[in-house]
Amino acid sequence: MPLTDEQTQEVREQRNRSLVTRRAVSEGLEEQLYTAHPVLDHGFIRVIDYMGNDEAIVQAARVSYGAGTKKLRNDRGLIRYLMRNDHTTPFEMCEIKLHVKLPIFVARQWIRHRTANVNEYSARYSVLDREFYIPESEALASQSNANRQGRERSLPVAEAEHAISVFRSDSARAYDHYQELLSGEGKQGLARELARINLPQNIYTQWYWKIDLNNLFRFVLLRSDAHAQYEIRAYALEIARIVRLWVPMAWSAFEDCKLGGKSLTSSQLECVRRKLRGETIEFEDSNLSKREWDELAELWL
Amino acid sequence: MPLTDEQTQEVREQRNRSLVTRRAVSEGLEEQLYTAHPVLDHGFIRVIDYMGNDEAIVQAARVSYGAGTKKLRNDRGLIRYLMRNDHTTPFEMCEIKLHVKLPIFVARQWIRHRTANVNEYSARYSVLDREFYIPESEALASQSNANRQGRERSLPVAEAEHAISVFRSDSARAYDHYQELLSGEGKQGLARELARINLPQNIYTQWYWKIDLNNLFRFVLLRSDAHAQYEIRAYALEIARIVRLWVPMAWSAFEDCKLGGKSLTSSQLECVRRKLRGETIEFEDSNLSKREWDELAELWL
Amino acid sequence: MPLTDEQTQEVREQRNRSLVTRRAVSEGLEEQLYTAHPVLDHGFIRVIDYMGNDEAIVQAARVSYGAGTKKLRNDRGLIRYLMRNDHTTPFEMCEIKLHVKLPIFVARQWIRHRTANVNEYSARYSVLDREFYIPESEALASQSNANRQGRERSLPVAEAEHAISVFRSDSARAYDHYQELLSGEGKQGLARELARINLPQNIYTQWYWKIDLNNLFRFVLLRSDAHAQYEIRAYALEIARIVRLWVPMAWSAFEDCKLGGKSLTSSQLECVRRKLRGETIEFEDSNLSKREWDELAELWL
Amino acid sequence: MPLTDEQTQEVREQRNRSLVTRRAVSEGLEEQLYTAHPVLDHGFIRVIDYMGNDEAIVQAARVSYGAGTKKLRNDRGLIRYLMRNDHTTPFEMCEIKLHVKLPIFVARQWIRHRTANVNEYSARYSVLDREFYIPESEALASQSNANRQGRERSLPVAEAEHAISVFRSDSARAYDHYQELLSGEGKQGLARELARINLPQNIYTQWYWKIDLNNLFRFVLLRSDAHAQYEIRAYALEIARIVRLWVPMAWSAFEDCKLGGKSLTSSQLECVRRKLRGETIEFEDSNLSKREWDELAELWL
Repeated sequence: MPLTDEQTQEVREQRNRSLVTRRAVSEGLEEQLYTAHPVLDHGFIRVIDYMGNDEAIVQAARVSYGAGTKKLRNDRGLIRYLMRNDHTTPFEMCEIKLHVKLPIFVARQWIRHRTANVNEYSARYSVLDREFYIPESEALASQSNANRQGRERSLPVAEAEHAISVFRSDSARAYDHYQELLSGEGKQGLARELARINLPQNIYTQWYWKIDLNNLFRFVLLRSDAHAQYEIRAYALEIARIVRLWVPMAWSAFEDCKLGGKSLTSSQLECVRRKLRGETIEFEDSNLSKREWDELAELWL
Repeated sequence: MPLTDEQTQEVREQRNRSLVTRRAVSEGLEEQLYTAHPVLDHGFIRVIDYMGNDEAIVQAARVSYGAGTKKLRNDRGLIRYLMRNDHTTPFEMCEIKLHVKLPIFVARQWIRHRTANVNEYSARYSVLDREFYIPESEALASQSNANRQGRERSLPVAEAEHAISVFRSDSARAYDHYQELLSGEGKQGLARELARINLPQNIYTQWYWKIDLNNLFRFVLLRSDAHAQYEIRAYALEIARIVRLWVPMAWSAFEDCKLGGKSLTSSQLECVRRKLRGETIEFEDSNLSKREWDELAELWL
Repeated sequence: MPLTDEQTQEVREQRNRSLVTRRAVSEGLEEQLYTAHPVLDHGFIRVIDYMGNDEAIVQAARVSYGAGTKKLRNDRGLIRYLMRNDHTTPFEMCEIKLHVKLPIFVARQWIRHRTANVNEYSARYSVLDREFYIPESEALASQSNANRQGRERSLPVAEAEHAISVFRSDSARAYDHYQELLSGEGKQGLARELARINLPQNIYTQWYWKIDLNNLFRFVLLRSDAHAQYEIRAYALEIARIVRLWVPMAWSAFEDCKLGGKSLTSSQLECVRRKLRGETIEFEDSNLSKREWDELAELWL
Repeated sequence: MPLTDEQTQEVREQRNRSLVTRRAVSEGLEEQLYTAHPVLDHGFIRVIDYMGNDEAIVQAARVSYGAGTKKLRNDRGLIRYLMRNDHTTPFEMCEIKLHVKLPIFVARQWIRHRTANVNEYSARYSVLDREFYIPESEALASQSNANRQGRERSLPVAEAEHAISVFRSDSARAYDHYQELLSGEGKQGLARELARINLPQNIYTQWYWKIDLNNLFRFVLLRSDAHAQYEIRAYALEIARIVRLWVPMAWSAFEDCKLGGKSLTSSQLECVRRKLRGETIEFEDSNLSKREWDELAELWL
């Protein structure tokens, strides 16, 4: 269970809050506010605050393009136009603040998205909880050959069970040592900033993370991708669900133009043109690398 | 009057909006939402949206410092502690979105603050309005000798009036030419992106500008300073007024620690120490530049 | 002639400099260093400094991907792989510093690229030169209908000549007024920060601009595009020429994957798939907007 | 010894390189290029590349301030003026690229400096080395009471030795498990991205890190501070040594104005003023918090 009793109580109070505002409101997101949506075994994502909605994107775009756009496009069409043409600034006018609990190895990938604001729980000030990410058996797999950075073929059951038991016992021992180093009986005790260096990277941390919608779309695009590590993908997919509720029009433009779209190189476009002209074209005379050819071939299979 | 009839109507509608939210609310700022606060002769600042309040800063800090800080500091003390020690990330957890109308030469200084989001009215898409900043007579002054980048001694009345009449007639002529080039009778008309290059830099533009509170404090610090150009200072002071209503505790910490504070160099501190020890110390043996000495001397005059 | 005598002398001295370094060197770019390459009527671009070359990109990538990539890919293939898959961080490891002279209306578009460092000539400290961008007759055109932000059909000669003469005389008058306001005979003189607000946006300014290669590619992509304003495109194309000399492999990957590539939406991909399967498909049953259809149709025309 | 044989060989080759350039050169830094300067037990910092020197800062400032500053200030005075008045943009015109080997818990603090470019060794692609940070006995201390985030009183020898032996054995066991999970005999083997989650945070990683001088100064200011964790301070001090060699004038201005300087709040300044006027003033009537008073009292003790 990801939340302490105290936190559960706090969530209840926050959700009961009902204030009056003149600001733009997203009804879909209000419904989700403060609730902890579980991710992985002990993690969660909570929406703490947000600014703007679909209409705010449109409004910002209309400031830029002025009378030029006013008449002719409805909101949905305008948002799609912005998305398709990488007019990203109106999407920056929306902002969201999340409370996330996540394993440290996921946090290390996540933090690479630099255009965001972060307040992380400090293990120099405070003691970490005994919570470690232990993968489910089905999540365990071998190094991928195709992908070279990811995983592929599931482990045999016995091997998976062994791995899990190693994770479990090492985590438990590390946490026992952590506690003992901090304040073993009759001891002076080690500073927290030092005792924690011995903890493995599957321990959970938490942070407040604030980001604008444009950069959040980029996060979702990269981290929900099949090449991303499964564990961060779990968070990216939960965020995707949240964004869909927050700004449904922007989400749907993003989904069609970016998530489901594809960038073709000049050489790939040339192959498509030849193919469409009726030429037979094989990998050997495509002028493409194997990987670029395979990506393209998906179009005519 | 800065707003068109259409805009005035829109503001009225926006201000009448009253929705229910679970989010953090700043009562002081709700009151200001959407209203156009005049700046200079045709400019304004309107708050369009915001995220967070004093409590949100505290909440973010408590995530970072955890149980370590929980008990002992009240909100006001914690915010002051953060401000004084440049723990800036909790202030980044608040965000504000402004609609600003401002002369282009002010916009060019303003945009140098890079950590912000902007949607500016595009003079490629749309036609600019006939609105130019014409300084008041009292604002006209000579080049400063002390400061070397600013103004100092007021102009004699006749000279000031002449300058104003030059500004007025050049602005009017430029706008007449702009209109004529765009669509003179019987003409094909010049593209807007070209016709506008002839307009002077005192013409007004407008934008949506979104920034976090930490970067906004930095904007106010730099742009409300006595060395900033008077015209951007007018905007900075209006923003200061808004921030005070939005996050009163954070503002008061900022005012005492930053606006009213002073950074002393190692050499200046040494002078203060000697002075406090009762030594008589003159500029000549202070080891300081004249300017550093003068800054310091303010302390014992 | 864009450079003063003093500057020309300085360029000569800088180019004669010949020092020894252990750093990575780009021979193609060394040749260009300091020389002012003219752009528009009075503008220029000069390369002042740079960091890294093609090899530095490869080296940074190998740090990230470690032994995983070491053996199998040659430099050219690796750079292309990075470019195609938007692995942008190794390109950030190269940096360039330019000295640019450009009209203010171009500077206003340029500065929107926020991830860069800028030192601009200050018209508060110093007096601007009498240099204005006056478009060539062929550059003058009407507002585009298709594009709505750009220009299209050339102006008739008489109309173009009239526009040019308006630009010329307004620029000259504005500069005369500028000088007179600053220091008319027997006058106290207006501060520079005020006198300059009357100058039109086609006056030239200059700055040092430093940016990493990844963000520079984005600049070139957006600003060399057919939808960008002709005047900034002139600068982007000159920068493109410089980048090609600096990092030839990265440039060639960029050219094929990005400049000559195309992003297709999910709906567009579906059309291509149907077309490749031999279906006849018309705009009406394409489920695309007119603009999206036209973009796609280029593939089979 | 932090470097592999292969790396040592590479360093030797890089250092033997001697090329001709027209760019600005820092002789002090050329001498250091590529050499691995040890930090902690297995870490190092290597300068891989740099752009600019003291003269480049001056040159950028002169572009901004133009003729206004040209005559009157020598380089040293100008740099000090820029530093003291937070005119930070000329310092952004210098850039440095470092290769750093560091424990993961240090990397997690380091990466919070967002305005920088990073390529980190990927433990998804490649296998990590068996290198862990094991603190020296003297570095082990209890939680600080004064500071609340740091360490203070050294541990008794027996307790320190016990902690070190826990670190040692847990690190060794974790690495053994890592290897076994990756490719135990007769096993399919776990993907690298999963096997590494069990490794403790004192394992070493490495990255290329590129940053401009202004942001690097901020890094040094925050991370060489007495409140920073000892282990990142060790890196910050090594970087300080490098910066002093690279840009000696800028370093000396930074040292006097920032490192050795102090920011006083408005209330603290008031105390100093009263004290200088000869008033006796005690904590009780100072209107300061205890911590603010103690900071100030250092001036008259």
